Amino acid sequence: MRHFVSMQDLTEQEILLLVKQADNISIHGAQPLEKQLFAANLFFEPSTRTKMSFVVAQRRLGLNVLDFMSEVSSVTKGESIYDTIRTFESIGANLIVLRHQEANIAKKLSEMIKTPIINAGDGTGEHPTQSLLDLVTIYQEFQQFRDLKVVIAGDIKHSRVARSNAYALSTLGCKVYLTGIAEWHDDSLSYPYITMDEAVETADILMLLRIQHERHQADSILNTNDYLQQFGLTVDREKRMQKHAIIMHPAPVNRNVEIEDSLVECERSRIFKQMQNGVFARMAVIQSLLNEGGNYHEKTNHKRQTFIG
Amino acid sequence: MRHFVSMQDLTEQEILLLVKQADNISIHGAQPLEKQLFAANLFFEPSTRTKMSFVVAQRRLGLNVLDFMSEVSSVTKGESIYDTIRTFESIGANLIVLRHQEANIAKKLSEMIKTPIINAGDGTGEHPTQSLLDLVTIYQEFQQFRDLKVVIAGDIKHSRVARSNAYALSTLGCKVYLTGIAEWHDDSLSYPYITMDEAVETADILMLLRIQHERHQADSILNTNDYLQQFGLTVDREKRMQKHAIIMHPAPVNRNVEIEDSLVECERSRIFKQMQNGVFARMAVIQSLLNEGGNYHEKTNHKRQTFIG
Amino acid sequence: MRHFVSMQDLTEQEILLLVKQADNISIHGAQPLEKQLFAANLFFEPSTRTKMSFVVAQRRLGLNVLDFMSEVSSVTKGESIYDTIRTFESIGANLIVLRHQEANIAKKLSEMIKTPIINAGDGTGEHPTQSLLDLVTIYQEFQQFRDLKVVIAGDIKHSRVARSNAYALSTLGCKVYLTGIAEWHDDSLSYPYITMDEAVETADILMLLRIQHERHQADSILNTNDYLQQFGLTVDREKRMQKHAIIMHPAPVNRNVEIEDSLVECERSRIFKQMQNGVFARMAVIQSLLNEGGNYHEKTNHKRQTFIG
Repeated sequence: MRHFVSMQDLTEQEILLLVKQADNISIHGAQPLEKQLFAANLFFEPSTRTKMSFVVAQRRLGLNVLDFMSEVSSVTKGESIYDTIRTFESIGANLIVLRHQEANIAKKLSEMIKTPIINAGDGTGEHPTQSLLDLVTIYQEFQQFRDLKVVIAGDIKHSRVARSNAYALSTLGCKVYLTGIAEWHDDSLSYPYITMDEAVETADILMLLRIQHERHQADSILNTNDYLQQFGLTVDREKRMQKHAIIMHPAPVNRNVEIEDSLVECERSRIFKQMQNGVFARMAVIQSLLNEGGNYHEKTNHKRQTFIG
Repeated sequence: MRHFVSMQDLTEQEILLLVKQADNISIHGAQPLEKQLFAANLFFEPSTRTKMSFVVAQRRLGLNVLDFMSEVSSVTKGESIYDTIRTFESIGANLIVLRHQEANIAKKLSEMIKTPIINAGDGTGEHPTQSLLDLVTIYQEFQQFRDLKVVIAGDIKHSRVARSNAYALSTLGCKVYLTGIAEWHDDSLSYPYITMDEAVETADILMLLRIQHERHQADSILNTNDYLQQFGLTVDREKRMQKHAIIMHPAPVNRNVEIEDSLVECERSRIFKQMQNGVFARMAVIQSLLNEGGNYHEKTNHKRQTFIG
Repeated sequence: MRHFVSMQDLTEQEILLLVKQADNISIHGAQPLEKQLFAANLFFEPSTRTKMSFVVAQRRLGLNVLDFMSEVSSVTKGESIYDTIRTFESIGANLIVLRHQEANIAKKLSEMIKTPIINAGDGTGEHPTQSLLDLVTIYQEFQQFRDLKVVIAGDIKHSRVARSNAYALSTLGCKVYLTGIAEWHDDSLSYPYITMDEAVETADILMLLRIQHERHQADSILNTNDYLQQFGLTVDREKRMQKHAIIMHPAPVNRNVEIEDSLVECERSRIFKQMQNGVFARMAVIQSLLNEGGNYHEKTNHKRQTFIG
């Protein structure tokens, strides 16, 4: 694994290895790097949780962080993203984390760039570290994946999280189902659609997706309480879930839209647990990529730039 | 002290302890943390001095800094501030520094959140670390507080600094007076109003407030030299101050509005001294909160994430 | 050297010393500081490469970085740049890096401020660290400067890079020529103008400048392929260059405007090499300034703030 841009690239063994590595980090922590390395976080779209989660992961591994903001940068002078990444390579970035609005751009760039690229979400393409943290959360709950019934609920069509998770969960032997209003079905994914009521009663894992208000402002259903009642997770529906079943959501949550307010921190919700695991999942990915590139756990030598401060 | 959100919460002893701790840090420095901890700086309003002062304080204590910018974050997706803070908690923040436009929001959130919150200014509410740095500056000058005559001058009504200082100075036994144009009097504070001419002649400490042009653009008086002559500190008025009296201002200064240009760095001005003390005051508050939470000076253990870089 | 604001201030010996120091760092690295120092990066104009290059240089030297963004700061409250810098001094900055839109402001401020200032580009004034990295790149190629023929090509008039380089290259004994469309000639620089065709055939070093589209939107020539053909470096022209000649460009490149796309990473291009050298050049300047101020390589003492994390 030289880059981490899509869950479709990975075998079952590769995914399991990353999941177990992240779970191990969640228990035992991780050894920091002995070398001074730099991670460049190139975020072309707004993000709190993903970006900050990467920063914490990087700092815990002892990486220096280069924080790029497209709003205040040469991109406003029309520089291409390829040239931006080559610039960061030249000034010393050992790792690129990329969020961008264009679907599949991470994969395309990974074929042109030597420095490891982590896809932190590319348009309606993929969001593989979000998927990995979801897998870690499921693994911590069920200790394995085979034959678990996972229902992904909501705006499938526009969700890179849904896409990455559907690929990965299938690879791991889960039974994947989808649910949501008809306009949001995604014909490119060949998983069966069920109703929300069927979903809550049969799922081991109910994965709610965020409704991207910013993409659906015209949809009047979202401006009313109707969506929650018809397609969301109400207190009433939550009661009908299996005893061991868990609720997941990539956040930020639209309270009282995808999920009733009081359920966000309920006992079977793993929403904040997912965020915690995000740091461990990203640490595992970064370790793997730097190991692969020979940059991890290198011995100290006389040229080493010790960070003393 | 589990949070630091208001000067009203603190006893005389608690305030004095923080003042002396900050003064001590100004002389002897401070031991950095042995653990890798994270501070999340959540600034929902523009700030240079306060934010950078927190960053320096945090770095001097060995904390990692998570820099949140509301402009480029999920807050633009409508996420609530409660959810934003819970997110930072989940990804590993050990301390929250909050600046927000809503009065008293820091106190409200401190009742819902376990991680220590420092109020870095909330609307027209309070700005307790600014108050603490003012107290440190006064303490360095007079070695005590009792019976010092402090006059707070300017836009009392809209000033969270005035509010925090009036509370704290009273608690410490100072004699607090206010001065300023009648529209800016604050009926919720029961301190006597005097004229600026009386103020300069009798004050031990003259605390000028910043006029918030951004809130008073319509007030024609501010667009002329009249304000300085009638209510500001002119060279002429400065000459009538007591020999030992000092001038303070939270900055940024509007030169030739609150204070005549040539006085900003005059001998009795403590304006840049206040900024220096801001770092020490914030270090003292952070140390106290992390100590209280058991996070300070913890012993090294095998899981510790040494920052080597 | 107490500040680094203009190449005109420096003697041949001073420039050579910095060039060799940077080249030495490129080979052997640099010892980090033993003290915890802070660099404040004050960028009032957008920048990726320069700002990030400074950050990497600072971190490699073990400096803490204070990142100032004019968009989200008190400058929006009307604070002057002098007061902003004095604020950063007060809270503990040991070094100021300034980019600003006003020509020669760095020099002006350096006469008012004690803390070392590095000019990171001021309007149409100078950009001396960009010049230094260009010199390092030339030195690595030719091991000396005397009698090298350097042609600077493009928008001379608006280019602070051209100005800084013309000064420095002359001081070092290079033969400097200029080329470009007549409207962009700069009467304040007394170097001969030649044609682009003459330039490619005779230059040892062809220094292309970036065309600042943001300043020339009305110029219709830039919206066509004409500019490249008439004044840019085409594949055809590149073939006529001397065998040992190199191509330089400060980047970001406008591909197919100043230079044909396929030449950006061609064998004689040093464009990405220049970026690498940017980090080393800035490390050399920072070391020199901190040494001069007595802040470098100080001995450890009991008050030292060890950065442990």
